[in-house]
Amino acid sequence: MFEKILENVRIKTPLVHSITNYVTVNDCANAILACGASPIMADDQNEVEEITSICNSLVINIGTLNERIISSMMKAGKKANELNHPVVLDPVGAGASSFRTKTSFNLLENVKFSVIRGNTSEIKAIHKGSGTTKGVDADVSDAITETNLDEAIVFVKDFSKKTGSIIAITGAIDIIADENKAYVIRNGNALMSKITGTGCMLTSLIGAFCGGNSDSILDATAAAVCVMGLCGELAFEKLQKVDGGTSTYRTFIIDYISKMNTETLNGGIKIESR
Amino acid sequence: MFEKILENVRIKTPLVHSITNYVTVNDCANAILACGASPIMADDQNEVEEITSICNSLVINIGTLNERIISSMMKAGKKANELNHPVVLDPVGAGASSFRTKTSFNLLENVKFSVIRGNTSEIKAIHKGSGTTKGVDADVSDAITETNLDEAIVFVKDFSKKTGSIIAITGAIDIIADENKAYVIRNGNALMSKITGTGCMLTSLIGAFCGGNSDSILDATAAAVCVMGLCGELAFEKLQKVDGGTSTYRTFIIDYISKMNTETLNGGIKIESR
Amino acid sequence: MFEKILENVRIKTPLVHSITNYVTVNDCANAILACGASPIMADDQNEVEEITSICNSLVINIGTLNERIISSMMKAGKKANELNHPVVLDPVGAGASSFRTKTSFNLLENVKFSVIRGNTSEIKAIHKGSGTTKGVDADVSDAITETNLDEAIVFVKDFSKKTGSIIAITGAIDIIADENKAYVIRNGNALMSKITGTGCMLTSLIGAFCGGNSDSILDATAAAVCVMGLCGELAFEKLQKVDGGTSTYRTFIIDYISKMNTETLNGGIKIESR
Repeated sequence: MFEKILENVRIKTPLVHSITNYVTVNDCANAILACGASPIMADDQNEVEEITSICNSLVINIGTLNERIISSMMKAGKKANELNHPVVLDPVGAGASSFRTKTSFNLLENVKFSVIRGNTSEIKAIHKGSGTTKGVDADVSDAITETNLDEAIVFVKDFSKKTGSIIAITGAIDIIADENKAYVIRNGNALMSKITGTGCMLTSLIGAFCGGNSDSILDATAAAVCVMGLCGELAFEKLQKVDGGTSTYRTFIIDYISKMNTETLNGGIKIESR
Repeated sequence: MFEKILENVRIKTPLVHSITNYVTVNDCANAILACGASPIMADDQNEVEEITSICNSLVINIGTLNERIISSMMKAGKKANELNHPVVLDPVGAGASSFRTKTSFNLLENVKFSVIRGNTSEIKAIHKGSGTTKGVDADVSDAITETNLDEAIVFVKDFSKKTGSIIAITGAIDIIADENKAYVIRNGNALMSKITGTGCMLTSLIGAFCGGNSDSILDATAAAVCVMGLCGELAFEKLQKVDGGTSTYRTFIIDYISKMNTETLNGGIKIESR
Repeated sequence: MFEKILENVRIKTPLVHSITNYVTVNDCANAILACGASPIMADDQNEVEEITSICNSLVINIGTLNERIISSMMKAGKKANELNHPVVLDPVGAGASSFRTKTSFNLLENVKFSVIRGNTSEIKAIHKGSGTTKGVDADVSDAITETNLDEAIVFVKDFSKKTGSIIAITGAIDIIADENKAYVIRNGNALMSKITGTGCMLTSLIGAFCGGNSDSILDATAAAVCVMGLCGELAFEKLQKVDGGTSTYRTFIIDYISKMNTETLNGGIKIESR
């Protein structure tokens, strides 16, 4: 599966406009290039509308937020909406500071996101503040496990219905869903949490995959999650052979993104539809 | 030695708040993760107090200084002081511009630092301006060598007494001291100066080690210096086998940080107490 | 050839002041160190004049432009001109947004650049707005190929005459020229376009090489272009042996910069003078 998704990225080489943090920005740019797309990082309000206009998708990542770039995120997001470009939000650290939580709410109010990707805490923080917790809303209290999976799927589908965005909660088990359909993905490796940027790189890949597949946002997002997780597994296998540590692991993950193809993906994908 | 220091970092996984430069920030985040701690980079004044409150230590690095983040450094530093969190200063380039030198003085006046780490020039620049050079103060005029070591130790202890901070001067020979006790460390490799960020990564490790050992700041700082130096040695050995250059060297250094344990450390540590 | 150029960088270890983007800044710093020079990144207007005064050259790269750093670029550029330091411009994305194009023009009006390096689109965007397109000016409409090479050389020499800067257009075929002499260089590998920062790193190397050879700007620029291209070739060869991907490729490129010497350069250089 996802043959077409991968192929479209390689053939169309979508331009991905990213307004992102300065910690992992280099890894994000290299991940976007590795999968066959092309990155443009631009965060000044004097140019973000023009830059996003020549791109195929927009990624907004609040990892190192400041007031200057919030207005750029708003401008770029609105322009991308006008142009029907896929827009992806990574609410890094939402819930960790009120500044990040409030900014996430502001973004959600002003920009229509095609995809929101975060870990459980971040998605919960956004969910809580978005006015959707009242009444009978599903809730998810912890990391997603086999035990609370059914419950979590209901929560994600429900939140997707309310936001109109594909919701991707990633962790040991990933759930990617719209209001009707959820993909459960079990690729990945625990060591991925020991390098900075695996989440940000995944969001960048989602931006790239959606940019090349704007009519299949759910599948494009799921495909990106599978690719990232599988690259984490393949890199871990190779890492054992060279007796490497976490920095070599990072290098190998990006290497495998650049070498990914349908055959490898089909051989390693662990996905079910619910 | 330092078994407990290392163990505490791995067990407690301290959160390290870093306000640092955009040149080496990714390496710093990965070094913090590699040693078993967890990094948060946040530099906006709207959130630094809240972020530092959920952390275990704070690292302030002035590598790419600008006015916006100076106020964030002040706010975060004062808050961390209130909460008795260890605060580490890396006065990158103090002495190279009056902006950096003055900012270092301002920081020293407003924030109580647990540790100040720099090379000889940076520490001298801070020493000069901190009003401690008058009278009979010890001075150190050059890089630390076996010849001027005794003199340098007196200088470092003396400066520690005046600032109330652990002082760490690092170079070919490292001195880490409080007013009573100095560690002299001879780990490291000359090639470390051919990659950017070894100093910044070391400061980050100090932040992580102090975050997990807030009651043993001197030993935590010395342990971090030993780990960084030994990783530089081990990485150099491995580099010869693969005929690599400086970028592979950087990768191997972080790899060894992630693989460091008490046995390896005890096997390679070159430290004496004076 | 270029023995003296390389040797001067290693012997003089020029300090290179860089005001550059946050995407590839770490790679740029490591490339500068790898070739034997020393980087200082500083972008605040409170210190750029002082910092550039202690350096040997200045690199201005507009990759992630914002208003704050434009004034720093102006100040640093004027100061470097006063001191007769080589100043190198990388107009990243000129033509992609009017903000970048206009800023490039402003920089060109206020600062005298020793070297301007870009891809064909960027150089064309600058050329167009610099008032040189009227009349009989040579023009270059596409990527440089063997077919339009003669035409392109005339264009580059002509543009160099008008700006008084060495012009370096890099791509599959590189042209580096002043008004009288052009070097055509055919080193490099197509995979270089699949990692971020090869252009930025090249510009940084040019800054380093010019900093160590301020009386031979044309040759220093050509040497840097040859070194970068050859490292791309050598890294590609080694990459095949380890079955690596794009991130390992980046590592190997910087490795080879750090291991470059006259013998290797002479053995692989593909340059002609026109």
